[in-house]
Amino acid sequence: MKNKEIPYKIYLSEEEMPKQWYNIKADMKEQHEPFLNPGTGQPITRDELRPIFCDELVDQELDTTTRYFDIPKEIRDFYKMYRPSPLVRAYFLEKYLDTPAHIYYKYEGTNTSGSHKLNTAIAQTYYAKKQGVKGLTTETGAGQWGTAMSMACAYFDLPLKVYMVKVSSEQKPYRKAVIQTYGGEVIPSPSETTEIGRKILAENPGTGGSLGCAISEAVEEAVKNNYKYVLGSVLDHVVMHQSIIGLETKAALEKYDIKPDIMIGCAGGGSNLGGLIGIFAGEKIQGKNDIHFIAVEPQSCPSMTRGKYAYDFCDTGKTTPLAKMYTLGAGFIPSPNHAGGLRYHGMSPIVSKLYHDGILDEARTVSQTEVFKAAEEFARVEGILPAPESSHAIKVAMDEALKCKETGEAKNIVFGLTGTGYFDMTAYMQYNAGEMSDTEITDEMLQKGFDSLPKL
Amino acid sequence: MKNKEIPYKIYLSEEEMPKQWYNIKADMKEQHEPFLNPGTGQPITRDELRPIFCDELVDQELDTTTRYFDIPKEIRDFYKMYRPSPLVRAYFLEKYLDTPAHIYYKYEGTNTSGSHKLNTAIAQTYYAKKQGVKGLTTETGAGQWGTAMSMACAYFDLPLKVYMVKVSSEQKPYRKAVIQTYGGEVIPSPSETTEIGRKILAENPGTGGSLGCAISEAVEEAVKNNYKYVLGSVLDHVVMHQSIIGLETKAALEKYDIKPDIMIGCAGGGSNLGGLIGIFAGEKIQGKNDIHFIAVEPQSCPSMTRGKYAYDFCDTGKTTPLAKMYTLGAGFIPSPNHAGGLRYHGMSPIVSKLYHDGILDEARTVSQTEVFKAAEEFARVEGILPAPESSHAIKVAMDEALKCKETGEAKNIVFGLTGTGYFDMTAYMQYNAGEMSDTEITDEMLQKGFDSLPKL
Repeated sequence: MKNKEIPYKIYLSEEEMPKQWYNIKADMKEQHEPFLNPGTGQPITRDELRPIFCDELVDQELDTTTRYFDIPKEIRDFYKMYRPSPLVRAYFLEKYLDTPAHIYYKYEGTNTSGSHKLNTAIAQTYYAKKQGVKGLTTETGAGQWGTAMSMACAYFDLPLKVYMVKVSSEQKPYRKAVIQTYGGEVIPSPSETTEIGRKILAENPGTGGSLGCAISEAVEEAVKNNYKYVLGSVLDHVVMHQSIIGLETKAALEKYDIKPDIMIGCAGGGSNLGGLIGIFAGEKIQGKNDIHFIAVEPQSCPSMTRGKYAYDFCDTGKTTPLAKMYTLGAGFIPSPNHAGGLRYHGMSPIVSKLYHDGILDEARTVSQTEVFKAAEEFARVEGILPAPESSHAIKVAMDEALKCKETGEAKNIVFGLTGTGYFDMTAYMQYNAGEMSDTEITDEMLQKGFDSLPKL
Repeated sequence: MKNKEIPYKIYLSEEEMPKQWYNIKADMKEQHEPFLNPGTGQPITRDELRPIFCDELVDQELDTTTRYFDIPKEIRDFYKMYRPSPLVRAYFLEKYLDTPAHIYYKYEGTNTSGSHKLNTAIAQTYYAKKQGVKGLTTETGAGQWGTAMSMACAYFDLPLKVYMVKVSSEQKPYRKAVIQTYGGEVIPSPSETTEIGRKILAENPGTGGSLGCAISEAVEEAVKNNYKYVLGSVLDHVVMHQSIIGLETKAALEKYDIKPDIMIGCAGGGSNLGGLIGIFAGEKIQGKNDIHFIAVEPQSCPSMTRGKYAYDFCDTGKTTPLAKMYTLGAGFIPSPNHAGGLRYHGMSPIVSKLYHDGILDEARTVSQTEVFKAAEEFARVEGILPAPESSHAIKVAMDEALKCKETGEAKNIVFGLTGTGYFDMTAYMQYNAGEMSDTEITDEMLQKGFDSLPKL
């Protein structure tokens, strides 16, 4: 299809949808360091993970040699509800910026959960159902992950308990209502339903909760009820499930013989970025391309740009295994005025390793006011109201396209548009009212986070 | 493509997207009676409409002979942002209902405005821009139309004033925020900005407003500022712009040689229904098919099922021309507990005429609790959270599919899924909490509406 005019939206057919996930670890020259048991300091074993996670997910998590995993038919059927997702040529944005660059975005917001999270939610739920698990627990902050899990559990008819950060469940009643419409039980966290929740409430009755606390409650509840716990980012098997984003992107680009020069993804826990660049990064390791990969982080939570590459807990409650990753420390707390999402203190070990090894070329921070400015410009010209998270990638894609305008280069820029902002209007209202501000991270804030790192 | 397996989503390519709108009036054996000037009782003229509407839209409105109108390239480019929209085979719903019927829905919710309204918003805005109009005014109730107009005006860089029913602007701050994000000015109605607004406020300072009042304010403001006014439903040119829904549906069905037996659309002002069935109804008039068409109305606002076929005002403020249509009377007020949308007192004159002449076979009412039950079931199996309006059609499609289960017939059922319910969570919450009820329309309520009909 060389030289054929590129449509606004490149769709794959359902037959062209990938039938396997890609496990980049099989192509990495060196593996990321293993998860450690925080008690013993020894690498975590399969048997230590099984009480919390489903067996097949544990196997996927620890597998470093199998390059491709078959996507079970049941999951592929579900994917057909909303996949293949379109790769959009941003003609309108190019015209608006008056750039010679060609901009593409992989749009993952076409499903009701509003983001890419559904790709792994349905996979994790399938394996739980297959294993005969009685139910699942998880946590949610902004609510996208909880929504994705509620859709997946409705589909496989599996009970779901979502520990939702209390302040978020109060500020986002509509998110909560969507989860409930799909049959998920929403428990504002901290709650009286768990030991850790009761402890935190006794110590601090007025607390609005935190993601760390919600994770701890969800894990405790899973173990107590013989449920399993599911996590929406960070872990290796999550990054693998998200590889479908990159695989579809690659297939769509190849239809029109387009070779990306720059690929950009926002990075919170790393699952979107890892999924988008996965197959391309694997090929880069093999010397098959020289794409410039950029991770975009919020100024308020710069784990790769200003964090340390160190072992840390995955949760602020310090109950999980230790992961070697770029981290600001589990005790790092983003400024309270931060509204742009991507608040996680650490970064996927796979993504961290790719960055450490120079395959992921660059991490860049952007301030939230410039992110919302880019989001609004994008919405007006491309017609999609983007999630604040996704808008971090939009901002950098626009910056790169403007550089091309200066140099006259017609680079191919591909970024991930992870989702929609329909449930983030409070932040947009704040921006529109001129009430949004930026906060420089001080050395003192950073130090406080680093002080929370475990001493090994 | 006969006998080929039908995918979950049938997409047309961008080249296959219709390049013309279909004007069903050219195929109707008898035209609907003309709009009348309420002062003179005489058919309204082009010149009487031009101070309010753009010239080309007036021409389209009055044209009864041109079968196809070219869609200008600028509009087709915009359509490519979100069209062609998918025709979805509801495999999951069929399985859930255990029905031999084949169910299809044309999904118009893939754009940020969340509904089919954008199809005519961009068209009306284009003609305004082309005519050199300074700006546009309109009204909005639930907010979908206001959002669509704000997106269209952002695209063509045209100022927009949206009179939003005050109680709705207070209950739906996020809808308001979306409109503002796209640059639209939102004025809660009644307001101090117009004579009629000031009059209503003086008489009733605490009023929450009404669609009728918002229309009157928007029209006054348009005339005063040399802006033009745009309307999102009811009028003939709106139905014609929406014909793209049916044209795409027809092209998608023909790809797989599928012949619909039943077509179902929800009906408020009639633009979605008229757009969906348009080309099929035109062919039925010509004896080319015998599709059974069903309009679905809320029990609380049954204009076709319990209204009169009479001349009436299009607005409750009684400022517009008179239209011959099925109507409950401009003074009809749906029960305050009605949360399902489709609150308009009348019905598109084209749709009304098709119903009167028996081309549109059937109008059916459904209660809002059964609508929300169907909506929730649909969301859980098909993965899309539907708008309450669209869910009226879902309910009847499910009923028809269950009839097929009884008879063993494998009928092809096609319905219009007009949009998403992301901004309607208050109603879903009410339903989930068991706090939603139904109201039988009493003869007294009907009579009050009929008493408001103009005496000709």
